[in-house]
Amino acid sequence: MIVNPRQTKIAVLGAGSWGTTFAKVLADATTGEAEGGHEHIVLWARRREIAEEITHRHTNTTYLGEISIPERISATDQLSEAVSGAGVVVLALPAQSLRDHLAQVRQALVPDAVVVSLIKGLERGTHLRMSEVIAAELNIPADRIAVVSGPNLAMEIAREEPTASVVACCDEAVAEQIATLCSAPYFRPYTNSDVTGVEIAGIVKNVIALAVGMCDGQQLGDNSKASVITRGLAETTRLAAALGGRLETLSGLAGLGDVVATCASPLSRNRSAGRLLGQGYSPEETAQQLTQTAEGIKSAGAVLELAHQHQVEMPIAEAVVAVLTGKLAVENIATLLLARELKAEREGLTHDHR
Amino acid sequence: MIVNPRQTKIAVLGAGSWGTTFAKVLADATTGEAEGGHEHIVLWARRREIAEEITHRHTNTTYLGEISIPERISATDQLSEAVSGAGVVVLALPAQSLRDHLAQVRQALVPDAVVVSLIKGLERGTHLRMSEVIAAELNIPADRIAVVSGPNLAMEIAREEPTASVVACCDEAVAEQIATLCSAPYFRPYTNSDVTGVEIAGIVKNVIALAVGMCDGQQLGDNSKASVITRGLAETTRLAAALGGRLETLSGLAGLGDVVATCASPLSRNRSAGRLLGQGYSPEETAQQLTQTAEGIKSAGAVLELAHQHQVEMPIAEAVVAVLTGKLAVENIATLLLARELKAEREGLTHDHR
Repeated sequence: MIVNPRQTKIAVLGAGSWGTTFAKVLADATTGEAEGGHEHIVLWARRREIAEEITHRHTNTTYLGEISIPERISATDQLSEAVSGAGVVVLALPAQSLRDHLAQVRQALVPDAVVVSLIKGLERGTHLRMSEVIAAELNIPADRIAVVSGPNLAMEIAREEPTASVVACCDEAVAEQIATLCSAPYFRPYTNSDVTGVEIAGIVKNVIALAVGMCDGQQLGDNSKASVITRGLAETTRLAAALGGRLETLSGLAGLGDVVATCASPLSRNRSAGRLLGQGYSPEETAQQLTQTAEGIKSAGAVLELAHQHQVEMPIAEAVVAVLTGKLAVENIATLLLARELKAEREGLTHDHR
Repeated sequence: MIVNPRQTKIAVLGAGSWGTTFAKVLADATTGEAEGGHEHIVLWARRREIAEEITHRHTNTTYLGEISIPERISATDQLSEAVSGAGVVVLALPAQSLRDHLAQVRQALVPDAVVVSLIKGLERGTHLRMSEVIAAELNIPADRIAVVSGPNLAMEIAREEPTASVVACCDEAVAEQIATLCSAPYFRPYTNSDVTGVEIAGIVKNVIALAVGMCDGQQLGDNSKASVITRGLAETTRLAAALGGRLETLSGLAGLGDVVATCASPLSRNRSAGRLLGQGYSPEETAQQLTQTAEGIKSAGAVLELAHQHQVEMPIAEAVVAVLTGKLAVENIATLLLARELKAEREGLTHDHR
């Protein structure tokens, strides 16, 4: 697929904090024998002023403050210009508008290009994962779609604080090529062939982060939050397994690692949204107070519908959706999350008997 | 074993923060038809002034500040007086001095009493888990030994913030009886028959907390710490599996739950110790600055020896021991923890190829 990474043009679509940071990772990657990264990285920003700032001032102050963006990265507000000629197209777009953008991507896409998704979300209505939306909309096979996910708070990576991550593709050779492309001194990718497990982990993580944020807002302590994280990951694992994902993926960096980083960090949008909900703000008031989208709010309902389709019980997702839809007062969330009959732990983690 | 919990005298040995808090949980437990807890809970404190304060003032200011201790709890500095006539003996003693105390316990122990360990540590020299030390020293069968472990920061439980926990015993009926005894409105025990998994989780957790603390001290971010937690739990799981423990236990409250609570909390002694080490203090200087023992410092070497005996690779424990023994400068810990060859994640989590 990728003949020579040093000659490949790479497009990154979406110049929010994660898209911009991932472009920086690609630029800082040390591939091949000589160091110095790839020839050509183009970032697409919806807003012209952001594209111009990145190209000329090498910053993206809206999303990354004063972080300096490598000069090798240029930006454009023309999507087809970014995609045209790119051997690798990285998607860092909002989950719910991905499909609309892909119509434009398809027009300009090079045959055999590999598409990499950084997006964590489930499409409302269809319940499709992002890699499935990409396959359908671009009409490309699964071995040309990779997913990157892990304990990857964008701002920390932009500051070059070391982290590990996971690159997943059903074709391990493709996963390895993408891992090589984005292997920087501060960014260590591991490969995995379990795309389903990695995507489900990333999607449900945002819902768990909302629940943990609600606990924060209700002033519950670290014990309670650790219980929610543990049982949240257990229900995520059940859903992933029902869809064909592997247990080890959920215990790994894209599962456990991501949920721990998100729930530990004050930087997480979903946790911040949960905290506001936990303090008693309505979903509308919460959305107004946030500058960026909290994807968990949009995906939570779809996650629960998918779980019901597959007969998987997800009490934490259910509680979150009940709060979001006004069916549960947030004051009752602790009781709901912790009050259950005495029982064997294994049973509790595999089946739910509320 | 336990005929009627409401008529059982329960002894709790050790009046530190966790022993005292667990006595409070037992006193607040709602067992049987009538509420109101057990008749008789006796706490043993090594220091007479603490025993007197608990009995007469119903506080333990040294360890729990102004938290009020239920009047039903009395305390004594005479160990044999506490143990004598108790149907359940709970141990909340320092791991490395447990064996010495057990000699005294044996003299006063009621036949058929159940012994419950709250202790997280591995005996130096023998590499025995606490339940194994108890079995050997008291000469009682495994079905009379239970272990309690989970995301249980003592101070939060003392403040009655809700949490879940795990009660493990090879005999599930005994685990259920102990779970009933300690089921309080703010404390939800789940049962498990995997004593080995629960104990190994609790022991290695303290070593991981040291590693996470070192990352704190080196000012690494939440991504790095989440990677250390994820891979630390993976190596803990490998060790537990080699010793006969179950994977699900490590993904549960006593595994994942405990490590997440500890590593999230500023209250953790082991994480605080790691932070001081990460800031460049020597192990001796670190010990001097802490008021209570950081058990991880004492157990880390024994954990690594046990891992070597069973051919389990534990790179994080190895790095922690190398810092503690002065063989690794703490500045190099991030590089050591994150710099590894590109590889498949599953391979990375099951085998290590540094």
